[in-house]
Amino acid sequence: MSDFRQQALDYHEKPTPGKISVELSKPAETSADLALAYSPGVAEPVREIAANPEEAYRYTAKGNLVAVISNGTAVLGLGNLGPLASKPVMEGKALLFKRFAGLDSIDIEVKHRTTEEFINTVASIADTFGGINLEDIKAPECFEIERALKEKCNIPVFHDDQHGTAIVTAAGMLNALEIQGKCISEVIIVCMGAGAAAVACMELLIKCGAQRERIYMLDRKGVIHTRREDLTEHKKLFANNTDRRTLEDALTGADVFVGVSGPDVLPPEALKLMNDNPVVFACSNPDPEIRPELALAVRDDLIMATGRSDYPNQVNNVLCFPFIFRGALDVRATEINDEMKVAAVEAIKQLTREEVPEAVIKASGGKKLTFGRDYIIPKPMDPRLLQRVAKAVAIAAVESGAAQIGLPDKYL
Amino acid sequence: MSDFRQQALDYHEKPTPGKISVELSKPAETSADLALAYSPGVAEPVREIAANPEEAYRYTAKGNLVAVISNGTAVLGLGNLGPLASKPVMEGKALLFKRFAGLDSIDIEVKHRTTEEFINTVASIADTFGGINLEDIKAPECFEIERALKEKCNIPVFHDDQHGTAIVTAAGMLNALEIQGKCISEVIIVCMGAGAAAVACMELLIKCGAQRERIYMLDRKGVIHTRREDLTEHKKLFANNTDRRTLEDALTGADVFVGVSGPDVLPPEALKLMNDNPVVFACSNPDPEIRPELALAVRDDLIMATGRSDYPNQVNNVLCFPFIFRGALDVRATEINDEMKVAAVEAIKQLTREEVPEAVIKASGGKKLTFGRDYIIPKPMDPRLLQRVAKAVAIAAVESGAAQIGLPDKYL
Repeated sequence: MSDFRQQALDYHEKPTPGKISVELSKPAETSADLALAYSPGVAEPVREIAANPEEAYRYTAKGNLVAVISNGTAVLGLGNLGPLASKPVMEGKALLFKRFAGLDSIDIEVKHRTTEEFINTVASIADTFGGINLEDIKAPECFEIERALKEKCNIPVFHDDQHGTAIVTAAGMLNALEIQGKCISEVIIVCMGAGAAAVACMELLIKCGAQRERIYMLDRKGVIHTRREDLTEHKKLFANNTDRRTLEDALTGADVFVGVSGPDVLPPEALKLMNDNPVVFACSNPDPEIRPELALAVRDDLIMATGRSDYPNQVNNVLCFPFIFRGALDVRATEINDEMKVAAVEAIKQLTREEVPEAVIKASGGKKLTFGRDYIIPKPMDPRLLQRVAKAVAIAAVESGAAQIGLPDKYL
Repeated sequence: MSDFRQQALDYHEKPTPGKISVELSKPAETSADLALAYSPGVAEPVREIAANPEEAYRYTAKGNLVAVISNGTAVLGLGNLGPLASKPVMEGKALLFKRFAGLDSIDIEVKHRTTEEFINTVASIADTFGGINLEDIKAPECFEIERALKEKCNIPVFHDDQHGTAIVTAAGMLNALEIQGKCISEVIIVCMGAGAAAVACMELLIKCGAQRERIYMLDRKGVIHTRREDLTEHKKLFANNTDRRTLEDALTGADVFVGVSGPDVLPPEALKLMNDNPVVFACSNPDPEIRPELALAVRDDLIMATGRSDYPNQVNNVLCFPFIFRGALDVRATEINDEMKVAAVEAIKQLTREEVPEAVIKASGGKKLTFGRDYIIPKPMDPRLLQRVAKAVAIAAVESGAAQIGLPDKYL
């Protein structure tokens, strides 16, 4: 067994199994404490909430509590392993919510027979939480699941595999395009992959200015075009009226490649077909669509991002999801809408352009970080993300009408 | 607003809302930590669990995690207030699980239209947890819900309002009867109330030796007898072939009164109808079926218990539920069966007969505690409960075949 593999298993097993625990946030030592926490004192907040449901935010942990929910149908890159096997991932996500944004977070793994049953289960328990982060749910079901739950629930529901990825990708892309001297509304984009993350990335880039007709999306059969008759509802949105068919067709004269598909599907030679100063996001994890060293050997005018932490420019969802929920929950947003997502994109994008504190450089490996081709995305260890992204999201929630309360003092 | 009411609300609101939080149980400071906790390290335990579901107990928090689940149909004594209003109670229960037994516990409030929908929802999320504590669910639905969930789930499912109450009642009752010089198999028992707790208490007393035909259970219409045609399935089990009709009929020559109904329904004068050396458990909370001072003014040969902490002999579920789950989870029991419940009764009963440590006396108000009519039930603050009850339950689980693993070292 490799060292790292053993370390990862040990980390999860010892000294106690798992990565999160539930703790008391109030004193519970004496009989007097317990008389307030439970019987008879607990009847008082119960009565208040029965009279006014909003009081749940005042007297219970709901307002700071995010459920990380999966059905285990698309666990990491490993596939449909079922809900129980997804538990370490969901607990890991809960850990990240706490670590980065101080949010209490608990994982829920759902066994289900039908999509409808999954939706009903989650909707039934939703009031327990302040927000719901959906995770590792396969396409195309994830689209229907998120849509239905957003409709049924009065709290933010966010499928991170779609929107977290999209937000970080968009922030990095806008920075990369600026460095390359290109305008988002003019670039030709090739998107390799047509799953949940691909669709969400392209939709968000469009909200940031990209033109739908300049996007070539490819699935396993090649370019998605208007004459294909095998397209799902979501793929149809990207059907391009084009004669391009292959990856090489698509790349010819393209400015941007976004890979959210699988390892090594982009041959280095194909990069030569792209325009000057191209941008390549190869986000498949752990093995990208193309290795940065291979890509840069072919073209030195390239800006490259991956999902890996051992190369520059890591597209990492943790730059977004803790903070978008932090901002949303801080103003009791009823949803995470497009305005809030775009605000997160802007905040992450802008932060990259500021001077990086020494501590962040140290925590990120010691290498100097200056806005440029090797630093288009902030580092996960940057503590400024919390205040910047959460605040931007909270303000957008207030301005777009999604917030139920005003900005808290910390954002004023 | 009364001082206590304000204190209870303040306790729940300040400095942060609610009573529980989720915390990290593993280091998550550095990038290296996060590489183990999340990507890419998390894939290792995922693969292990996918290959063998039992490994979830090794690599995730599941094995120490109890869900406290309610639909809010019978919140405290306050009635059907709905799931959200029950949240402070469920969080309180989670707090008690941690405080008394070190179990991680999270509340889940379930909105439901039908009993079947509630059952399916809970069954769908059950794999997330090591055990499920059902709470504040009204009768008669609670019987079907518990039965169905025990069948569908491979983890302990325990409706505390039924069985927690029954276990503590039975332990105290066996002690009281011994002091009064009576034998459980010979006493005549009057049970005022025919709800979930009443049925569970009587069933467990029967398992401890009481005779079904010597029990007179009363609902709002009086004694439940074989000629009544309005009986639910569960009341039918207690239909007595008798001419007794009223509470007074039932009490005549009875040895034991168990009240799990409502305040002040037992007139002091009626106590005179009972046999010598009677036992009265008036468990309605906060206002018992009869006030101890009124009861003892009529009969000084009485042993009396209530649900209140300000009188001797408090029947308090917290003496049982944290420890029965602790014992069950420590041996990965697939259920909480009758053998485990009876073992809990015996352990609580026996502990009462031992010398009480000074610290417990001090924490319980300072009054001397010696086995006798004013001390037939241990005090909630007694730290010996954890080891005694949990160990007894774990052993019973192993011996009855409910355990999936052997006794841990701490119980050997």
